[in-house]
Amino acid sequence: MSYSGGQPGGYNPYTPPPGAFPPQNAQVSPQAQQWFNMVDRDRSGKINSNELKAALVNGRGENFSDSACKLMISMFDKDASGTIDIYEFEKLYEYINQWLMVFKTYDRDGSGHIDENELTQAFTQMGFRFTPEFINFLVKKSDPREHKEVSVDQFIVLCVQIQRFTEAFRQRDSQQNGIITIGFEDFLSIAIGCSY
Amino acid sequence: MSYSGGQPGGYNPYTPPPGAFPPQNAQVSPQAQQWFNMVDRDRSGKINSNELKAALVNGRGENFSDSACKLMISMFDKDASGTIDIYEFEKLYEYINQWLMVFKTYDRDGSGHIDENELTQAFTQMGFRFTPEFINFLVKKSDPREHKEVSVDQFIVLCVQIQRFTEAFRQRDSQQNGIITIGFEDFLSIAIGCSY
Repeated sequence: MSYSGGQPGGYNPYTPPPGAFPPQNAQVSPQAQQWFNMVDRDRSGKINSNELKAALVNGRGENFSDSACKLMISMFDKDASGTIDIYEFEKLYEYINQWLMVFKTYDRDGSGHIDENELTQAFTQMGFRFTPEFINFLVKKSDPREHKEVSVDQFIVLCVQIQRFTEAFRQRDSQQNGIITIGFEDFLSIAIGCSY
Repeated sequence: MSYSGGQPGGYNPYTPPPGAFPPQNAQVSPQAQQWFNMVDRDRSGKINSNELKAALVNGRGENFSDSACKLMISMFDKDASGTIDIYEFEKLYEYINQWLMVFKTYDRDGSGHIDENELTQAFTQMGFRFTPEFINFLVKKSDPREHKEVSVDQFIVLCVQIQRFTEAFRQRDSQQNGIITIGFEDFLSIAIGCSY
């Protein structure tokens, strides 16, 4: 069967007949469906963070970190089961692709990782003005051995963490001047609640 | 060869002759050595968080979480290699045993997990006075599906997180009144730096 044109005496190829596809796939893009089938190694119809990890490789040729996979699954895992279904997966798939595009924009030399300068540019364009010391701290945290560069999975983790903590901070920064006064328990709630 | 008594014409059994043991084992307890050999499945002489995970089981019959194992390895992994050697392992071994003892003290019904009441008692005896809402938040964070109980590995993660964040908070709480004023970047440094 071809979708490149109408079939003689057939139906409009752009309107699949009822029952042509399983209904659960009706709204999932073919790319996401294909990727889902590849990632779902045990054919359970669900993807956990280990399956995601096995499918994702960063610019250093390593699999994405446990942290990154767990974080990404948890962002789309509405029922806290530790797994995502194909609908949740499609959102995650788009999300990862968006991050890959962002990352490639800053990885100007195409090395598969970004250095302090590239990370500074990335955050500046996202609207943050961080000191060189803070950027250096982020690079050290991501690359504890070499203190040099950040891979794409680490970049995603950093951005999600910063996004979450910034949101929590901003809610308490009533004067919007970058300084808050905060009690011990509230502080702990943010620190523990936004971590993964 | 027996160490239960002197050998005829032999040496003092309590002073092993030079070279009797490999020097690297000289200061490691037999229990830790035995456990290390069991955990180090690939016989690399190093233990990573996956090997640790495979060896540790919580009261629910599940292996310890990735987060817990990664956190514990990172606490003793001086050169940030992601692995620990036998000396670092011995410290971790003692550390885990101490936590197990603490946990058992609060797990009065011996269920292998602790509930909100038991967790409240644990923190009270550690010197914290948390509100019921905060304890409830911690239980929900540890048990996102049931909102009921905390396993031993989750308990270790919570305690280490709270310990780290409390230390960072206290350093900034000059009046020791439980309230701090903090800037955005400093806040992010703690939140990201103390997470794992």
